[in-house]
Amino acid sequence: MHRTKVTVVEEALDANNTIATANRADFDRHGVTVINFMSAPGAGKTTLLERVVADLPGVRVGVLEGDVMGSMDADRLASLHIPVTQLNTSPGFGGECHLDANMVRSAMPSLPLHDIDLLIVENVGNLVCPAEFKVGEDARVMVCSVTEGEDKPLKYPLMFRACELVIVNKIDLLPHLDFDLELLLYNIDQVNPDVEKIVVSARTGEGLEAWREWLLRVAGRAGAEVRA
Amino acid sequence: MHRTKVTVVEEALDANNTIATANRADFDRHGVTVINFMSAPGAGKTTLLERVVADLPGVRVGVLEGDVMGSMDADRLASLHIPVTQLNTSPGFGGECHLDANMVRSAMPSLPLHDIDLLIVENVGNLVCPAEFKVGEDARVMVCSVTEGEDKPLKYPLMFRACELVIVNKIDLLPHLDFDLELLLYNIDQVNPDVEKIVVSARTGEGLEAWREWLLRVAGRAGAEVRA
Repeated sequence: MHRTKVTVVEEALDANNTIATANRADFDRHGVTVINFMSAPGAGKTTLLERVVADLPGVRVGVLEGDVMGSMDADRLASLHIPVTQLNTSPGFGGECHLDANMVRSAMPSLPLHDIDLLIVENVGNLVCPAEFKVGEDARVMVCSVTEGEDKPLKYPLMFRACELVIVNKIDLLPHLDFDLELLLYNIDQVNPDVEKIVVSARTGEGLEAWREWLLRVAGRAGAEVRA
Repeated sequence: MHRTKVTVVEEALDANNTIATANRADFDRHGVTVINFMSAPGAGKTTLLERVVADLPGVRVGVLEGDVMGSMDADRLASLHIPVTQLNTSPGFGGECHLDANMVRSAMPSLPLHDIDLLIVENVGNLVCPAEFKVGEDARVMVCSVTEGEDKPLKYPLMFRACELVIVNKIDLLPHLDFDLELLLYNIDQVNPDVEKIVVSARTGEGLEAWREWLLRVAGRAGAEVRA
């Protein structure tokens, strides 16, 4: 019984990888760098995008916004005058808890690939399944809020292991929490020793420059800007 | 393609309901009330249990602890000297992001059903799939932390709609957040107008008496205790 189930899962992941490779080829043809952006619900993904995407010199950003239902985050981002495409997993996809390569493929005709350099795919808020399904991205970034506890890397290791960058958010709340930031960073290193980490508060702006620089670097524009 | 997928989902849910009914019959035969306890990662489920389960007069509590990996929460609860059974979704279940009826069924031989009155099933931290899979419970409770934002009921309506009780946690942080508690409660009412709501801080203890009373009521022990 269990063996059958695992086989089904493996076949689904194989099929997903095939479609992800096709997506990757389409993105490459248009010279678009793609970030798969993941976190638990409410960790601050949308705010972290709001704070930086309008201020990336030389990089035209688009967002593919994944939600089970609704378009609240897409509406927030569209007010920044960047192209935002909404992808809901509820209609047609059975209310899936993650984006997969086929869903992103279905959104491909709506993406302005000729007009952007960097596509950020904001995944459904979930620390489990999004890590299992590649969508054709160049890099994966996850956000971990200090309000979630130091144990999350040990409880959801696949997510932390799948990423090139972990953003630790909401550090403005540290004085009000029983939370050991060093222990969280240690736990992240336990499951993914080489992962890059940026510690920020999207609310106060602390650390956001490093997040902006990371995006510029990934989009191939590091050093290309002249700051006053 | 999509139609096939939806059919598979429906068949999976039908099969799950059949097994949930069998679980329900086993729990009934032993007179055990079962709570399916759900939330996003880090909302405070385990702390909310730590704070009350050792202080429910006349109610012998057991916990079935669901995690993708590890047994950290189970270890925390076992220190309270209540029976705790760990169920990991990683080995054999493909790292599932939720508990389903079959997983709970597989744990049945390990549950001390003769020795408990109330079984709390602490689900995997996730606001999507746990709401879709009944496990044979009498009631469903979800925890929503104020750090997650007011929009969560609108983005994850199935979870909020599936519950008999919503616990709003971490209100000790309200002075430090840009968060509108009234708006969250309004949004919960939008998706589940009749749901009971308890506003608490597991950290300071504010509101926990209502959570304790709710558990006593559901376990059929309301009014059975004599308080000093």
